[in-house]
Amino acid sequence: MKRCFALMVLFTVTAAFGQTKPRARDLGVPFEGIPGPLNAITDIQGVEVGHSTIISGEGTLKLGEGPVRTGVTAILPRGRQSDLLVFAGWFSLNGNGEMTGTTWIEEAGLLEGPVMITNTHSVGVVRDAVIAWKIRQPGSPAAGFAWSLPVVAETYDGYLNDTNGFHVKETHAFEALDSARSGPVQEGGVGGGTGMVCYSFKGGIGTASRKVAQSAGGYTVGVLVQANHGTRSQLRIAGVPVGLEITEGVSRPKDEGSIIIVVATDAPLLPHQLKRVARRAALGLARTGSTSGNGSGDIFIAFSTANPEAGKNSGTASISMLGQDGMNPIFDATVQATEEAIVNALVAAETMTGRDGHTVIALPHEGLRAALRKYNRLIEKK
Amino acid sequence: MKRCFALMVLFTVTAAFGQTKPRARDLGVPFEGIPGPLNAITDIQGVEVGHSTIISGEGTLKLGEGPVRTGVTAILPRGRQSDLLVFAGWFSLNGNGEMTGTTWIEEAGLLEGPVMITNTHSVGVVRDAVIAWKIRQPGSPAAGFAWSLPVVAETYDGYLNDTNGFHVKETHAFEALDSARSGPVQEGGVGGGTGMVCYSFKGGIGTASRKVAQSAGGYTVGVLVQANHGTRSQLRIAGVPVGLEITEGVSRPKDEGSIIIVVATDAPLLPHQLKRVARRAALGLARTGSTSGNGSGDIFIAFSTANPEAGKNSGTASISMLGQDGMNPIFDATVQATEEAIVNALVAAETMTGRDGHTVIALPHEGLRAALRKYNRLIEKK
Amino acid sequence: MKRCFALMVLFTVTAAFGQTKPRARDLGVPFEGIPGPLNAITDIQGVEVGHSTIISGEGTLKLGEGPVRTGVTAILPRGRQSDLLVFAGWFSLNGNGEMTGTTWIEEAGLLEGPVMITNTHSVGVVRDAVIAWKIRQPGSPAAGFAWSLPVVAETYDGYLNDTNGFHVKETHAFEALDSARSGPVQEGGVGGGTGMVCYSFKGGIGTASRKVAQSAGGYTVGVLVQANHGTRSQLRIAGVPVGLEITEGVSRPKDEGSIIIVVATDAPLLPHQLKRVARRAALGLARTGSTSGNGSGDIFIAFSTANPEAGKNSGTASISMLGQDGMNPIFDATVQATEEAIVNALVAAETMTGRDGHTVIALPHEGLRAALRKYNRLIEKK
Amino acid sequence: MKRCFALMVLFTVTAAFGQTKPRARDLGVPFEGIPGPLNAITDIQGVEVGHSTIISGEGTLKLGEGPVRTGVTAILPRGRQSDLLVFAGWFSLNGNGEMTGTTWIEEAGLLEGPVMITNTHSVGVVRDAVIAWKIRQPGSPAAGFAWSLPVVAETYDGYLNDTNGFHVKETHAFEALDSARSGPVQEGGVGGGTGMVCYSFKGGIGTASRKVAQSAGGYTVGVLVQANHGTRSQLRIAGVPVGLEITEGVSRPKDEGSIIIVVATDAPLLPHQLKRVARRAALGLARTGSTSGNGSGDIFIAFSTANPEAGKNSGTASISMLGQDGMNPIFDATVQATEEAIVNALVAAETMTGRDGHTVIALPHEGLRAALRKYNRLIEKK
Repeated sequence: MKRCFALMVLFTVTAAFGQTKPRARDLGVPFEGIPGPLNAITDIQGVEVGHSTIISGEGTLKLGEGPVRTGVTAILPRGRQSDLLVFAGWFSLNGNGEMTGTTWIEEAGLLEGPVMITNTHSVGVVRDAVIAWKIRQPGSPAAGFAWSLPVVAETYDGYLNDTNGFHVKETHAFEALDSARSGPVQEGGVGGGTGMVCYSFKGGIGTASRKVAQSAGGYTVGVLVQANHGTRSQLRIAGVPVGLEITEGVSRPKDEGSIIIVVATDAPLLPHQLKRVARRAALGLARTGSTSGNGSGDIFIAFSTANPEAGKNSGTASISMLGQDGMNPIFDATVQATEEAIVNALVAAETMTGRDGHTVIALPHEGLRAALRKYNRLIEKK
Repeated sequence: MKRCFALMVLFTVTAAFGQTKPRARDLGVPFEGIPGPLNAITDIQGVEVGHSTIISGEGTLKLGEGPVRTGVTAILPRGRQSDLLVFAGWFSLNGNGEMTGTTWIEEAGLLEGPVMITNTHSVGVVRDAVIAWKIRQPGSPAAGFAWSLPVVAETYDGYLNDTNGFHVKETHAFEALDSARSGPVQEGGVGGGTGMVCYSFKGGIGTASRKVAQSAGGYTVGVLVQANHGTRSQLRIAGVPVGLEITEGVSRPKDEGSIIIVVATDAPLLPHQLKRVARRAALGLARTGSTSGNGSGDIFIAFSTANPEAGKNSGTASISMLGQDGMNPIFDATVQATEEAIVNALVAAETMTGRDGHTVIALPHEGLRAALRKYNRLIEKK
Repeated sequence: MKRCFALMVLFTVTAAFGQTKPRARDLGVPFEGIPGPLNAITDIQGVEVGHSTIISGEGTLKLGEGPVRTGVTAILPRGRQSDLLVFAGWFSLNGNGEMTGTTWIEEAGLLEGPVMITNTHSVGVVRDAVIAWKIRQPGSPAAGFAWSLPVVAETYDGYLNDTNGFHVKETHAFEALDSARSGPVQEGGVGGGTGMVCYSFKGGIGTASRKVAQSAGGYTVGVLVQANHGTRSQLRIAGVPVGLEITEGVSRPKDEGSIIIVVATDAPLLPHQLKRVARRAALGLARTGSTSGNGSGDIFIAFSTANPEAGKNSGTASISMLGQDGMNPIFDATVQATEEAIVNALVAAETMTGRDGHTVIALPHEGLRAALRKYNRLIEKK
Repeated sequence: MKRCFALMVLFTVTAAFGQTKPRARDLGVPFEGIPGPLNAITDIQGVEVGHSTIISGEGTLKLGEGPVRTGVTAILPRGRQSDLLVFAGWFSLNGNGEMTGTTWIEEAGLLEGPVMITNTHSVGVVRDAVIAWKIRQPGSPAAGFAWSLPVVAETYDGYLNDTNGFHVKETHAFEALDSARSGPVQEGGVGGGTGMVCYSFKGGIGTASRKVAQSAGGYTVGVLVQANHGTRSQLRIAGVPVGLEITEGVSRPKDEGSIIIVVATDAPLLPHQLKRVARRAALGLARTGSTSGNGSGDIFIAFSTANPEAGKNSGTASISMLGQDGMNPIFDATVQATEEAIVNALVAAETMTGRDGHTVIALPHEGLRAALRKYNRLIEKK
């Protein structure tokens, strides 16, 4: 466990000194649209992201002992200081997965706290930990809050991790929440994405963003994914069949993964509009080749940081709503940022060996460039 | 057909001179809550209702010739003069029926024209007629409008009507639209409700309304039903098993009917809130004894006349939203008004004979009072 | 905590010697339909129910110390021995609550393990405990299972319980699972229902069942509720406004509760048919007076124990499906059994004092009978 | 109108003598998967398709007079002879459109007749015509049927057609139904697709199919689209940005179209499984570049011709269900066939001039080949 915290500090330092690892567009992958300054979900004012990465042990799996390759990621819509709720909507493209709290999102259109992502078998501990964390915040009433319905999603890391060993603890959820920051977001095998596999390459956390034109409101759309889905042969990047070009090192050949997609925007969208946005994440996913396999928990949530009165209880709230003419740029941005966030996850992830010597290779950057070049899609200036 | 228009004029006159037929509460049926001045959906400012009633022929059914016992009812959210859209939501309790236009309501939360109700096999003609009617309105562009997705619902009147004879024509839809008015609403066997059967009594159109307390915003909720559902033994009024007390004259014993429920309010509700309201109509229906049979098309729509900018296309719209603390009074009002509207439909309907000598008896007012008295539920002052 | 286990043993003994506490129909409450032998969800062959009841401390709430009035209830569709999945469907009438695992139920129509019910803030610990329990069962693979998506629902017990103290532990979930049995079901303030309040009376667990006619297939429908919903004035029993007749001892006057309803049947229903059944639970709830308040998590699940091949993975499965003509008896049975299960919860519950001296009184049996008698609804022979 | 019928005869002859027009794969477009013998929805045994194409007039639009560029397409799941129902499911990716009958499909999982596709403002006439047509079939009861809830979908052809002139008549619906055949399917600007525009090229009807491996059951999946969606710059074919390569002749630049997608299979899928399949059509659409614009009615339906007892009313039906392991090949087939069907619609369509001289150019075959060649994606052997 020590190792894990050390690793986190290292990453944090890296982030503080600027993201030195190349991202997908640094390698010459062509994407549509204009990203925000960080090309990250944190381009939306107020959004904060934190990770808790848990890595320990190696060799043969011993149930409850390891090896451990897992973690928790927290996305806070308005940062840690705010109690203000946000409007939200969700969509399940293929519901072989869990996202708690969605029944209330569907009913009330409200996201009342962070979005957490972890491994499948640790959803419960993280869920209750969010309530405990909320009770511990300064200014919380002595008897705690009334009921809470936290939002916790998951993808399955059992190929690399002793996932039935329940290594995620309450403290890891706290750590993800307490370390949440604006600014650059760590990508790849960190936080909830630590043990993930994507198109039979190493997967994990990825992010991207898009700015819509000033004439369309100048809004920003940011996406964060925990990518754990797909088979090698499906992978397409910028329309190029990369998965058919890079055929070595296929791990976890069956499509038994999942992808969680979180979309944030500062556009003033109502709950029913955010459901529409969440549905577009499916189209961005499709661009990378997925057919959303039966074993995949492909579950998406979208929220808007506009409308500070979204959660007002008494009387009436004053709400701003984007007119219908403004929806298409938001839809385009969502599709584009989702596509890039997935590719960013692949590009950032590093080869990892986990339980029973299972090794999942990273997407080779040069192989990717070669494939793009073969199909005349590489932006060569890089 | 002549007969039908004569009948309409008569009813209109009646309405103009004040509703002289007793309604459910006039008979001493106890209801919860405070109704609006008309105890009708037209208590919501701007809402207009029109009927076209088509009655002709008697005796043995000849396909295409009659007898005819059918019609069309139109509910206009903001009257005939307004092009302003309203927010809306819908719910299908048992979807053995049709309500066109709901896919767009679910997507955009917008109701863009009237709600029409007719018989099952005339949904199409009424649907296209709404588009034609819109094109004919003054100020319409020469080439007509771009696409329209009218909302037309139905219940089945084949027990009394030559429903496969397609007797509803475009002109009947126009008539319902053109005759729409604020003020008292005709109830019973009129408009779309002409040939309907409810709990094996004569059914049809019914309406009611509720005012919520000023402290809760002072909003009004109005309900209009086209009631064609249920079997005799199910009927409960004010908790009294009326259907077990009045056992004579059971027609159409199988539960093969349906009920369309339209809920209107001036409370500033967003689309997702209106879906919640539409769902409450099911609870009002349940109070009258229905278990929503397999053959029933129990489909409900709710709209709000607040928010004139609901349909704004460009830029952003300024929207008012009722806070969550205000929802319970709206829910109560919806349940209560739905319950009363159904009983009003039964009380207003008159015995009718249709195809093949099929006769459906009206709910006997004295029998109803006797049943309520037996169970100590009659308000005797009447 | 000691006290809690003693109490459980006592209850179990009572159950073994026959249910001596009166149930609603023993008091003369009239209900429709024919119950099964136990008038309980366990009338469905294979269904087992277990409770873990946690009661300790009294007086002023100290966060994390108590008083504790909470627990866990487990419903196993095919008992503890079976790995066979069941078809299932769900419905949220008002989604201010949690039922994990529903995304997969909606997707695949499969319930892959027990349905657990606990308090709102203990959903997480119970969820992960179900996975841990499954891993511990004999014959489980050494490395544990692949992913699991347990179904855990909740209602809020913060009026009586130190709910933010997280007193439900993994062992309590195990206890509920391990104690699951066929036979009579404990009702009232036990298991997940320990700290619940219903129509401002003491609530909790209730159950009932219905047999449909042999001519309709002879199937059984069973219902179990964890009832924590409603305000006093809403309560209706057998159509009688009991909540207006018994006005003393109103606790928790605001409608901030919830109700979880579990419907089981041996009728061969497909997933989409089970969604229809789950929706009917709303109609049974409505009969007791609820308007499903904004603060209520009214979430329902239905499953069928027919079709042992429901979860077959390879090739094709042979499935039996009830024809449409058979649905109405199932719908009626669901509405009727839901209504009776709620009243049974009220009748079984006993007055309880919890945190800060909060006392919730039991529904007085004589008061109930007096109210029924006043409205000529009491079955006097009892 | 004469012209239209002549045209139809010509097309029919062409079809009878073999499809001489090239299809997408004839041009060297690479696709994944193995098509059925016809590469059409009619590869599913029993499925029949008919078109009624209505073309008349030219020049300036005169409301009600023309020019007319519209029609009707009919897809019969089991041909004209069968009364047997099929299981079905549907999905709305962006509900700015109409598909009647979906409320019953969602409820009962049954498609009880043909799927019809026409223009937006003719949904009503076609809907009622389906009922009238059914009544006229030999063996129909004298008084006609009980209620029917036909499925009619639409896309908007107002750019080329006098769509507010209501030129589709009952007879055209009959014609589409009566001309339905197995065998090759006419593609491009025929039937309901006559006046359609797709990615600012001429659109319309397209079809394709896939065979899944014998080891996966050997099932066939067929897709038929009425394609009227997208803007030029979005168009991608086989991952190649064709819309950026062919920039001339952009008509209807705004994304105000729609796409209806019909998926048929002989795999034994239950209603909830068919909803999953319908959802995959979105992923095939995404591969061609769409982001599903606000103005688009992107509505999909899937049905299975397996299970002759799907619509059995009395007793229980014997149903076959594909196990979960079989779903992925079906999902892949759906995505692939949808993608190819859209490209087939573009390849088959011919340049058309309609109202007010509006001309929509066909996708130039050589331009397409050049674009594919530039990105090393052309299969050159052709």
